[in-house]
Amino acid sequence: MLLQAVHHAFHGTQGNGLTRTQIASAVLIIGSVIFAIARTEPTVETALGGWADRIDVIIACVFSMEYILRVWCAGANPSFEGVRGRLRYMATPMALVDLLAILPFLFGWGGQSFLVRIIRLFRILALSRLLRYSEAMRLVLESILNRRYELTFAVGLAGAVIILTAGALYSVEGDIQPEYFGSIPRALWWSICTLTTVGYGDAVPVTALGKVLAALTAISGIGLIAMPTGILAAAFSEAFARRRENPGGAKKSDQREG
Amino acid sequence: MLLQAVHHAFHGTQGNGLTRTQIASAVLIIGSVIFAIARTEPTVETALGGWADRIDVIIACVFSMEYILRVWCAGANPSFEGVRGRLRYMATPMALVDLLAILPFLFGWGGQSFLVRIIRLFRILALSRLLRYSEAMRLVLESILNRRYELTFAVGLAGAVIILTAGALYSVEGDIQPEYFGSIPRALWWSICTLTTVGYGDAVPVTALGKVLAALTAISGIGLIAMPTGILAAAFSEAFARRRENPGGAKKSDQREG
Amino acid sequence: MLLQAVHHAFHGTQGNGLTRTQIASAVLIIGSVIFAIARTEPTVETALGGWADRIDVIIACVFSMEYILRVWCAGANPSFEGVRGRLRYMATPMALVDLLAILPFLFGWGGQSFLVRIIRLFRILALSRLLRYSEAMRLVLESILNRRYELTFAVGLAGAVIILTAGALYSVEGDIQPEYFGSIPRALWWSICTLTTVGYGDAVPVTALGKVLAALTAISGIGLIAMPTGILAAAFSEAFARRRENPGGAKKSDQREG
Amino acid sequence: MLLQAVHHAFHGTQGNGLTRTQIASAVLIIGSVIFAIARTEPTVETALGGWADRIDVIIACVFSMEYILRVWCAGANPSFEGVRGRLRYMATPMALVDLLAILPFLFGWGGQSFLVRIIRLFRILALSRLLRYSEAMRLVLESILNRRYELTFAVGLAGAVIILTAGALYSVEGDIQPEYFGSIPRALWWSICTLTTVGYGDAVPVTALGKVLAALTAISGIGLIAMPTGILAAAFSEAFARRRENPGGAKKSDQREG
Repeated sequence: MLLQAVHHAFHGTQGNGLTRTQIASAVLIIGSVIFAIARTEPTVETALGGWADRIDVIIACVFSMEYILRVWCAGANPSFEGVRGRLRYMATPMALVDLLAILPFLFGWGGQSFLVRIIRLFRILALSRLLRYSEAMRLVLESILNRRYELTFAVGLAGAVIILTAGALYSVEGDIQPEYFGSIPRALWWSICTLTTVGYGDAVPVTALGKVLAALTAISGIGLIAMPTGILAAAFSEAFARRRENPGGAKKSDQREG
Repeated sequence: MLLQAVHHAFHGTQGNGLTRTQIASAVLIIGSVIFAIARTEPTVETALGGWADRIDVIIACVFSMEYILRVWCAGANPSFEGVRGRLRYMATPMALVDLLAILPFLFGWGGQSFLVRIIRLFRILALSRLLRYSEAMRLVLESILNRRYELTFAVGLAGAVIILTAGALYSVEGDIQPEYFGSIPRALWWSICTLTTVGYGDAVPVTALGKVLAALTAISGIGLIAMPTGILAAAFSEAFARRRENPGGAKKSDQREG
Repeated sequence: MLLQAVHHAFHGTQGNGLTRTQIASAVLIIGSVIFAIARTEPTVETALGGWADRIDVIIACVFSMEYILRVWCAGANPSFEGVRGRLRYMATPMALVDLLAILPFLFGWGGQSFLVRIIRLFRILALSRLLRYSEAMRLVLESILNRRYELTFAVGLAGAVIILTAGALYSVEGDIQPEYFGSIPRALWWSICTLTTVGYGDAVPVTALGKVLAALTAISGIGLIAMPTGILAAAFSEAFARRRENPGGAKKSDQREG
Repeated sequence: MLLQAVHHAFHGTQGNGLTRTQIASAVLIIGSVIFAIARTEPTVETALGGWADRIDVIIACVFSMEYILRVWCAGANPSFEGVRGRLRYMATPMALVDLLAILPFLFGWGGQSFLVRIIRLFRILALSRLLRYSEAMRLVLESILNRRYELTFAVGLAGAVIILTAGALYSVEGDIQPEYFGSIPRALWWSICTLTTVGYGDAVPVTALGKVLAALTAISGIGLIAMPTGILAAAFSEAFARRRENPGGAKKSDQREG
């Protein structure tokens, strides 16, 4: 039957890799995201001229058609049969992400306002639809959940150190550099930049005492980053090792949700 | 009895998670810390107007009441019975932290002096009271103590490299950039920023020889950070693995101290 | 026979380390690369005067002679016998790298144009010929290939976070700093600099909301870097551990290709 | 006998920790280093006035006396008996470090010349004498030697990437920013700062192509740092694990050399 064939094209069978339709869909999603990113650059927008809007219309049509087909063929799954079943399917998280991803393509816009920028940004969320093809995401989320106790502790300790070091620099440099250390919320910017070792260099202590405290902060940052890094690295390596041992099982559970 | 009930509300029973009183206390501590942080920002202080001081009075009252209840209900523990027992309880480290945390709320202040800033900073220490609920802190401290030999060595080696690289840059760039490399203590700021890979960019060598030495310093920083990171990550993963295998035991020892 | 002797000088025997010819060739390659690098510095070029071009001619002659000898002695290998066999040898990837590495030495140039710079850069590729002597490179590439699934996922997730954070900062700071955040492609520069913790400090958010988002980006960078770092570190340590257990086998497979 | 007692005071017995003389010597070394560092700061030098030179004379006397006692009591070791044995002792690496460390204290100096700075820097080398008390240093050096093959490869690969990225940026940005990218040696400074994620921000690409290449460099830096970090962390954890299992043996071999 056609319904079964379309369903198979979109969902594939276990252990056979991606179907041609799935690959085409993934390519289209990535392409539309790159196009949405490129359009924000004024020089690209100018170079494309009227073509930019025409390409947008085409992408909107293809994505809408794909959405309609996905809803229709969902009926091949016994739990989504009939009109009611299809409405239930439309309420599943994955179908909602699909809908959200096509909405900004369906509605036009004009001018360069802040709202337009948010809408354009939203179109990038289409990327998250790729997760449909990824069982790895589930493994990673699971492994993070398994370590939530350790991670909560590491995050809590890091948060306390960020606040205390921000408070220390606020006390010492608050009068001299009010723009960057005039309040604890402002000093937090410096504190996070230093503890993550990003070190932009816009907010930098200038007094001797401030530098001593900042040096201690930078050194304590090594330990603070070592904790979540170690926990996450161990969790990821466990998750991927589990998948290696049991790839079929992982795919099976993926199938169930898709 | 009431004494037992209050003691139970504050300390809970082993293996049953946090009581409603403990959760309320934790929420209040975090809330008061956020409030203390926000008040340092002039724009927030202006926006709140007279409410800021009123909220402070409320927080002070609630924390004082909590402290009095804690001291009173400590008598439910046989080792803190009677007036003498409660005084002994007040001398325990955790009770002293509680007292220190409410002191700045009890005393008023005026103006924007350096002392006020220190007092406000002190209020953030209320955060450390959350450790009362954390057995993980003990695990982490224990695991660090177990590796004190390795960490001392790593810190000693890092210290020697920090001093030697600061000395090298002082020799080479001392005459050209006296503000940042005019003495070894000044050059230490550059040296720590580079070896921790923070790299603010305020102190940067400008001569060819200085850049060669700085490049060697940056590269040796990788090894220096790898050592404590590796030691700490291994220690943390061991500590949390031990807890996984024996969660009851960890909670038991926590109970004993609380 | 001479053919066998020359072949042995260039390729050595299994388990006996490098031959004197191989060491001389490696020293010459490294020396010519250092010379090519040094010549790009105008002060060095001026100091060397006419000697720079003369040294270049000598290097070109030695490398050309080496290439001819290599092609000739390839005949000692049964699969590259005769003129046809030698042409087949010249088409192998390693022989093509050798040819590419001597081409820029064979053709002269004049002036300081962009093309000259590209040609000079090309000469540095001579370095890649050293891989001929390295079985470790194969081990590393193999271990990376074994983890291609995990690495693809880590790279995909990192790519999504880089794009989303760039989009967020573009929305917030696009109007204020059009040079650095005026489009998503421009904001990508900031985003990559922050997530890799390089933090040059040329593109830095200035608004409160922008700083909050940048702080979240910097913190999420820890997890994003922990994933590939953990995967790669595990892959490398496995690859080198395998070599330790079976060093002869690794050398054997190297021999086969050389 | 006195000779035995003094030898014991300086060298201790196996498994008994440090003697009082050893602790006093370590404190004096650290103190003299801190003093040498502080004297480079003009404000400290001015504050100390004449006392600075007097303290220097005292340190010189104590260190010289210690050196003479060490040489004399070396005779308690059968292999260094007699005048000839002591001369042999003076030629051991540790005794030479001791001599080098007191030389700058024995010779005076005047003015703020570059030579003085080098001499002062030399005094910091007194720190290396502390290694006499450290068996951990040997363990770490051994573990690094055991992995010399892996580390050589990692360093070689990192070196190749540093040179290639410097060459790429030199080709692209050489004309626009001649000060930082005008030659490959100059571009190396940028390349090392980026790959180690220090990111001072003094040398930063400004063209679109340069930024794309720099972004790729920053990302590849993650993998390049993951390799030596993983190798070193594994080597250190092995070395310290070995010591835990066999602490007596490590001390024994330390004894033999001291």
